[in-house]
Amino acid sequence: MNMQAKTGRLIGVGTGPGDPELMTLKAVRALEEADVVAFFAKRGSNGNARGIVGPHARETWTELPLIYPVTTEIHKDSKDYREVIREFYEDSVHKVEKHLENGKTVAILSEGDPLFYGSYMHLHVRLADRWPTEVIPGVTAMSGCWSQTGTPIVQGDDILTVLPGTLSEFELTRRLADTDAAVIMKVGRNLPKIRKALQTTGMLDRAVYVERGTMANTSSVRLAEKADDEAPYFSIVLVPGWAEKR
Amino acid sequence: MNMQAKTGRLIGVGTGPGDPELMTLKAVRALEEADVVAFFAKRGSNGNARGIVGPHARETWTELPLIYPVTTEIHKDSKDYREVIREFYEDSVHKVEKHLENGKTVAILSEGDPLFYGSYMHLHVRLADRWPTEVIPGVTAMSGCWSQTGTPIVQGDDILTVLPGTLSEFELTRRLADTDAAVIMKVGRNLPKIRKALQTTGMLDRAVYVERGTMANTSSVRLAEKADDEAPYFSIVLVPGWAEKR
Repeated sequence: MNMQAKTGRLIGVGTGPGDPELMTLKAVRALEEADVVAFFAKRGSNGNARGIVGPHARETWTELPLIYPVTTEIHKDSKDYREVIREFYEDSVHKVEKHLENGKTVAILSEGDPLFYGSYMHLHVRLADRWPTEVIPGVTAMSGCWSQTGTPIVQGDDILTVLPGTLSEFELTRRLADTDAAVIMKVGRNLPKIRKALQTTGMLDRAVYVERGTMANTSSVRLAEKADDEAPYFSIVLVPGWAEKR
Repeated sequence: MNMQAKTGRLIGVGTGPGDPELMTLKAVRALEEADVVAFFAKRGSNGNARGIVGPHARETWTELPLIYPVTTEIHKDSKDYREVIREFYEDSVHKVEKHLENGKTVAILSEGDPLFYGSYMHLHVRLADRWPTEVIPGVTAMSGCWSQTGTPIVQGDDILTVLPGTLSEFELTRRLADTDAAVIMKVGRNLPKIRKALQTTGMLDRAVYVERGTMANTSSVRLAEKADDEAPYFSIVLVPGWAEKR
């Protein structure tokens, strides 16, 4: 059986939130073993995940950037958009699978944690049934944000709700009013709406705003003290739950 | 100024969910720099966090186990219980602070992520204002569980709710019915109640039960297929959100 070809192997590698030191030992080892390293990126940039693993890059890697299609002229709720994105993921699966068929170990990088809002999931669900697959968890962006700012987020029997900032003001308000702690993702231009929902629920004073958590150019501020409504898409608002229960 | 005494420094170190390979590079480095390594434990055991960092232990460490008081004869909702626990944390702060006053770097270990339901938080809130403090995030138990079982938990605009299994059946049901995805912690003897709430909300078929995620003796099973209601306290139930949206 020693003549048998090496079997392809898929590894979803969580790179953590940004600081390369927040990669796990297991992720570093997976990158040492990988023949092919795939990552999602926008045209003209290698993307955050590839940036984070930079210190561990190897000359022996075959690098496989998976470049998101340009969709700025198509509305995100349209059927066309969904079709373009679906085709992109199918095409990415095809590219990854060619390497697996050649017996390669393919690591797919994922910023943060692969199965927590990661694009990797779109490949995982199409490949994990067909190939030996391992997922290496990573420190999430939200953990990076609350640790960097020293914000105790949940304790004891606290309930934590993770909300996308894309929800309506009504839904944000309703859900904030019904939780002990919250993390609001995808802030960007939703910030004025998020601010109103926090004000309505009396939570604004304890909310913390974090940009590019754990990265070199990170910044954070109590949301009530943030003077403008400028925010990158991937900024995060933390609402700690435990404040009055010490 | 070289005559100045070294200043004490506090580091909250997330050890990750169990597999020592899931420690971050930053956590390993912090343990190399630490003079004193403190950890919560029960009498007769060094506890999970100390076990996880075992491969990185150093002979030069001063080890500081913080042993939980025995409280089995006191009801957890009673004033006596809260008082005993409060005194325990005050006493632990005192022990840690003596080392900080001697200019030592004290690492306090925390299983998973320090500010996400970790006992470390009780010391953090009493010390972080008084001493230079850094918190090193870790991979959470829940990330370990969904990665190990290959369960894509949330994608896109999914809402995730993290619930303690100690909630009433009514509260569990109400909150499960109102979320895309859920993680239920503190399962233990709450499992029959959790099962009923998942059944009522039609979520039982997609729920995954995980014991000791990423540890050597871990096990997992679709909850609908788990024949008994035996569960350790720190087992977790995952309810993935994204199943029908691929």
